[in-house]
Order: sequence, then structure tokens, then C-alpha cells
Amino acid sequence: MPTVVATIIPLAGRLDDVEAVLRDLAPQVHQEDGCEKYALHRGRDRIVVIERWRDGAALGAHGQGPAIKTMGQRLAGLVSAAPDVQILEPVEAGDPARGRI
Amino acid sequence: MPTVVATIIPLAGRLDDVEAVLRDLAPQVHQEDGCEKYALHRGRDRIVVIERWRDGAALGAHGQGPAIKTMGQRLAGLVSAAPDVQILEPVEAGDPARGRI
Repeated sequence: MPTVVATIIPLAGRLDDVEAVLRDLAPQVHQEDGCEKYALHRGRDRIVVIERWRDGAALGAHGQGPAIKTMGQRLAGLVSAAPDVQILEPVEAGDPARGRI
Repeated sequence: MPTVVATIIPLAGRLDDVEAVLRDLAPQVHQEDGCEKYALHRGRDRIVVIERWRDGAALGAHGQGPAIKTMGQRLAGLVSAAPDVQILEPVEAGDPARGRI
């Protein structure tokens, strides 16, 4: 059950544009097989997506799928680097209601 | 409803030790007022905590509270830098069941 934290840092002044791209594509990603969470967040200078996938195969298919391809095309010119993608595994601890996303 | 992504990068060979500290303290954090999520994750070289707090006041109290103080004491010698703490706000998009943590 991989969890992903993907960080996208826009070029100066393009945070709203990057957020709009991610908002547009979220419904399509939510319909992908094995997508359990794909939750957008905004920081001062970045968009961070917190994701949870059923398994590594579902995450792999997402990475090769049409939504990511469109995203890459639409983010060109709005960012200076590829997203930072951290692939993580949950660690069980404490209260399950609070200890899992 | 602030969301936090806190990244802790251990010194070489100390990932298991850092994970143990966070696991020990998670139940205490889960009982703090306003803690909605405090979910531990492990990557190849890091521990990442994904957190959600009721409001900024609850997050502020957590940052000044006894669990964080103990954590700082126990992590001394296991890490070379303070955690990277990103404070974010959720962006609503798509299916609410998948679009929020």
C-alpha cells in the first residue's frame, strides 16, 4: 500500500496556474484503478500531492497513464524541474484512526 | 485545517532507531487536542510524518508540547538536522473520498 508525497515547485508567480492543472486532473486520477487517495495541498511556494495506492502495480500504472502524461504537458513552462516524488510505506503506530491516512 | 508533512532524515544506519522513537511517541501525539492525523511513513532513507490538525492553534500547541520536546531529546545523535516541516492547506478537488486525507 504505497504512499506517495509528490512536491511540485512552480516558477515564480505560477502557483495558481499549477494548482489549476492539478485540480483539473484530480477527478481523472481518482478514477484510476487502485487510487485510494490523491489529495492536493498548497503551501507558500508549492503544491504537494499526498497519494495512497492499492499496490505498487497500481502506482506504476498511474505513472505510465494518460493523466500523468497530460499533466507533464500542461506543467511544461510552469515549473523548472520534475516533481520530487517520495515513495513511502506506512508504519503502524498508535491509534489506527489517526495513525493512517 | 492545516496539513503537515514532516521529513526526518536519520544519520547513516540509524533509520530503525529514528522509526522507533516516532513509534513510541505516536500514541501520545494522537491524544493531543486537535490531532486528526499523525501517520508515520518510512522511505529508503527517511521517516515522513503526514499530519492533519483541527486548526493552527492545535498545531501550535503540538509544536510547544511535551511529545515534541521528548522527540527532540531522543532524536539528538540520530539526525544531523532539524526535521523539514512543510505546513500546507488542503485544496478541494475531485472525489472527496479520495481527494482528502
